[in-house]
Amino acid sequence: MKAVRHLNAEAVQILATPDPGDFATHPVDALDLDLQGIPGDRHYGFARRAGAREPWYAKGTTMRSGRQLTVVSVEDLAAIAAAMDLPAIDPGWIGANVLVRGIPDFTLLPWGSRLFFGDGAVLVNEGDNAPCRYAGAGVAAANPGRAGLDRLFVKAARNLRGIVASVERPGRLAAGPVKLLVPPPKHWPGGTLS
Amino acid sequence: MKAVRHLNAEAVQILATPDPGDFATHPVDALDLDLQGIPGDRHYGFARRAGAREPWYAKGTTMRSGRQLTVVSVEDLAAIAAAMDLPAIDPGWIGANVLVRGIPDFTLLPWGSRLFFGDGAVLVNEGDNAPCRYAGAGVAAANPGRAGLDRLFVKAARNLRGIVASVERPGRLAAGPVKLLVPPPKHWPGGTLS
Repeated sequence: MKAVRHLNAEAVQILATPDPGDFATHPVDALDLDLQGIPGDRHYGFARRAGAREPWYAKGTTMRSGRQLTVVSVEDLAAIAAAMDLPAIDPGWIGANVLVRGIPDFTLLPWGSRLFFGDGAVLVNEGDNAPCRYAGAGVAAANPGRAGLDRLFVKAARNLRGIVASVERPGRLAAGPVKLLVPPPKHWPGGTLS
Repeated sequence: MKAVRHLNAEAVQILATPDPGDFATHPVDALDLDLQGIPGDRHYGFARRAGAREPWYAKGTTMRSGRQLTVVSVEDLAAIAAAMDLPAIDPGWIGANVLVRGIPDFTLLPWGSRLFFGDGAVLVNEGDNAPCRYAGAGVAAANPGRAGLDRLFVKAARNLRGIVASVERPGRLAAGPVKLLVPPPKHWPGGTLS
């Protein structure tokens, strides 16, 4: 793991929902995370049920969570908004928990990268968040004047919709400076991908 | 996540230790994994204490585990053995839980890759396993005729010592065919690494 230097990265907004049935999130001052995520949140837990994102598992299979929180960036949301001809995308519309600024190509951040929030919580990047119809529906609901925004979001948000993350170190998640550690770059020659 | 096709990968040995105080592992027929790893194992659990591998945390900090099991490959161990002028490296000397064959450059496998063992357990790659002095000491202890093998191992095993992994789907871990899913290749331009 290597520190990324000369970044001026920060968390600018923390969001959550008090209602586990509500997909949208709303700004809060801070969250106190434990190793299972945000206590009371719909994504809280070490485990979850497999769904459409894991077609290799039978639906409903108990599996390691890997998506306790979601993190998005100011820059990536601005790029989605521009592609959709909207003034802005609110991170709460798409259920995000953290809005960061100052990390280039945030959604492409390597898996296994660590985000350090002040002296408190540390999150592990568990992969980019595939744009889903719930997020698209959130954008559409907030902009009732235009049809088709749900499907347009899914297309426009590819590689820009942020990451899913697990808690590596429990602690407070609040706005403020963010430090970043990334795995050292390595090339895996790999095989034929399908 | 993309399937890697045309691989002929298999698990050829499963190893564990009945004694949590023993670093070395020994062949077993199969292991029944739950989401915390190998029941009774020294690395069992969702959490562990931070140590020398995480200099960014105070020693002893409670953190997400990420290293419930370790996996090594026949090909990588052969390369270490050749570099050390030894006939072979036994996976049990270095505390491995799974020995696989047929995945090229196994230790360089991307973080977030999934290994499917038959219809049972699925492991997530949480990063390459930094060669440590315990593993080096295991190699030295098994080859008492030569001095300095512990330090030589740490050097020779770089990028060849296999991976650490978490359980994504509980189930049986046994010898047999292995399927591999890897995250799609992406380029993160990144920043200055230190």
